Amino acid sequence: MAAFADADSLAHAVAAVEALGPLDARAMTAASAHLDGLTKPPGSLGRLESIVVMLAGITGRPDATVGRRAVIVAAADHGVARRGVSAYPQEVTAQMVANFLAGGAAISVLAARAGATLTIIDVGVASKIPAAADTSGRGGRLISARIRAGTADMTVGPAMTHGEALAAIAVGLRVGEAAVADGVDLLAIGEMGIGNTTAASALTAVLAEAPLELVTGAGTGLDAAGLARKRAAIGAALAVNAPDPKDPLAVLAAVGGLEIAALIGVILAAVGARVPVILDGFIAGSAALVAVGLAPGVAPRLLAGHRSAEPGHAVILRRLELEPLLDLDLRLGEGSGAALAMDLVGAAVSIRDEMATFASAGVSGREER
Amino acid sequence: MAAFADADSLAHAVAAVEALGPLDARAMTAASAHLDGLTKPPGSLGRLESIVVMLAGITGRPDATVGRRAVIVAAADHGVARRGVSAYPQEVTAQMVANFLAGGAAISVLAARAGATLTIIDVGVASKIPAAADTSGRGGRLISARIRAGTADMTVGPAMTHGEALAAIAVGLRVGEAAVADGVDLLAIGEMGIGNTTAASALTAVLAEAPLELVTGAGTGLDAAGLARKRAAIGAALAVNAPDPKDPLAVLAAVGGLEIAALIGVILAAVGARVPVILDGFIAGSAALVAVGLAPGVAPRLLAGHRSAEPGHAVILRRLELEPLLDLDLRLGEGSGAALAMDLVGAAVSIRDEMATFASAGVSGREER
Repeated sequence: MAAFADADSLAHAVAAVEALGPLDARAMTAASAHLDGLTKPPGSLGRLESIVVMLAGITGRPDATVGRRAVIVAAADHGVARRGVSAYPQEVTAQMVANFLAGGAAISVLAARAGATLTIIDVGVASKIPAAADTSGRGGRLISARIRAGTADMTVGPAMTHGEALAAIAVGLRVGEAAVADGVDLLAIGEMGIGNTTAASALTAVLAEAPLELVTGAGTGLDAAGLARKRAAIGAALAVNAPDPKDPLAVLAAVGGLEIAALIGVILAAVGARVPVILDGFIAGSAALVAVGLAPGVAPRLLAGHRSAEPGHAVILRRLELEPLLDLDLRLGEGSGAALAMDLVGAAVSIRDEMATFASAGVSGREER
Repeated sequence: MAAFADADSLAHAVAAVEALGPLDARAMTAASAHLDGLTKPPGSLGRLESIVVMLAGITGRPDATVGRRAVIVAAADHGVARRGVSAYPQEVTAQMVANFLAGGAAISVLAARAGATLTIIDVGVASKIPAAADTSGRGGRLISARIRAGTADMTVGPAMTHGEALAAIAVGLRVGEAAVADGVDLLAIGEMGIGNTTAASALTAVLAEAPLELVTGAGTGLDAAGLARKRAAIGAALAVNAPDPKDPLAVLAAVGGLEIAALIGVILAAVGARVPVILDGFIAGSAALVAVGLAPGVAPRLLAGHRSAEPGHAVILRRLELEPLLDLDLRLGEGSGAALAMDLVGAAVSIRDEMATFASAGVSGREER
């Protein structure tokens, strides 16, 4: 019964995205015209201007605001971690969730700087989350929604059942819908899960039809032997599960992760409600790859916060035709790059709203020759 | 007499930079060690971490603060503007200075967002600056220090005399020293001057020994005929003046600009006082090229705020071995890209100061295998 309800939720979310149609051309034209009247040569603020136009296209409002901001981080463990695919032990997932809640993690710091609320979804952490006291004022809010205590080892079978994948997506849908109901203007997504670059590489290899060597990197800092183990594990997972690239949900269940599934739900809920979503790096990108597979209308409504140092991310960005806002060699995840990019979106909106026009400032326009 | 005093000021500033020696290795090692104790894989915050290390190296303090921020914009006109090298009429320089003061320009908005004071130096605007009322609260402060009403037309002779170039540098030195005396922690520099990409292209062609076609772009938005006029003007200026690349001051006087000269002074004053300087785009970069020619110790103490869409900027960045923080297709100048980059420097310092350590957060470290 639960599985039917989850499948239904997903079908509704996909239908909502597909009902959006193309970006709002009228709002985009109005935003462009406004920008061209401001005291600067047309187009001279580059990506800041294209952000303004894109916000108009996504929201349908040339004056879309981005004041209410939220960072949503999904956390879960990976059975494949037992294959030595990460430089860190599995208990770090739970420990880092506690660190998010206490305000000591990078995303705690960067979300607070961005003026964003921070929500952590435990959708499948394997171990108990240590008690965390927030003495910093930067701690996140925890939503406990474990589907299972980490995925199964994908090298010997599917990471999740179809029903578990749907359930994890449904968790994300609910959290995303709650953020929309709270009036969020701008959403950034991130993740935590020891072993999850392995899942993201497997997803990318299948869904972007790319060689696994090209999409598998050192993650949190593997040495050569660790990287070899990781590639072997992904190779085994793809051989054992033989996922069909035409069936994104089946690929997700076979070689994905619970936190990746939850992010898919968050993306679909926000995009369907015309809320701009800033992706973080490689793992959030792999969630976007699945979300776009389920609902192609998602793609033009995503912002790529940054270009990750993980090699597979470039493949995803090309596939989704996304040009990242930042390129700072980040490879942390947690939503760190997406939260950093929020300032650029805020700057774009300030430019739109606070600059003088040629007329109001008495500045001469271009000369005709 | 004034010229002797100006030459003396410059010699002192250059000597102060050269007395700094290499970046402070001990402070950099301490900053790196601190970063490696924070709850993230070592190096996973990429450029944010290298900013922290660089600030330590520049200031000599692993805990350098960046709370007191200033944007300094130098403005002046260019005699070569009469050759039709810009898409805008010359009076726009004065009008835009008024716009800076009224708070309506992009840099007014972005400096305010960055929490920075905004100072405008009129070092050689050709026309009267219109009255400006700041009703926005974002207006800048004007320092009137005109050396002359714009440079001479460099296509028929030197843009400035040697003495005028020195005097304009001395203006920048004084403004930079005042900022240092005010306790500024982080400085961003920018400029305004119709025609000044022409001067920057000429400087870059000579000092970076690059073909002028490679370093000359559309500026604020020239069409093909305008670009041809601009290249012809630069070609004429280089032929008439034949500046010696080994003598950066002579090159500056021949084909530079008063605002570029002032920025050289600002850079030297700040760098000599161990204050980190964020460059804006192409024109600020051309000032840095001259400053490094005068005092090579400047180079490792500069941050490149962004990569400009102007083609000559890439040549400067390579020459100075600078990797820009942002790459957003900006081509406005005014210090806009440098002011935007201030948030990244602030984020880097927040990461350094606010994140938990593995020990304090109870997070397990890397596994040895």
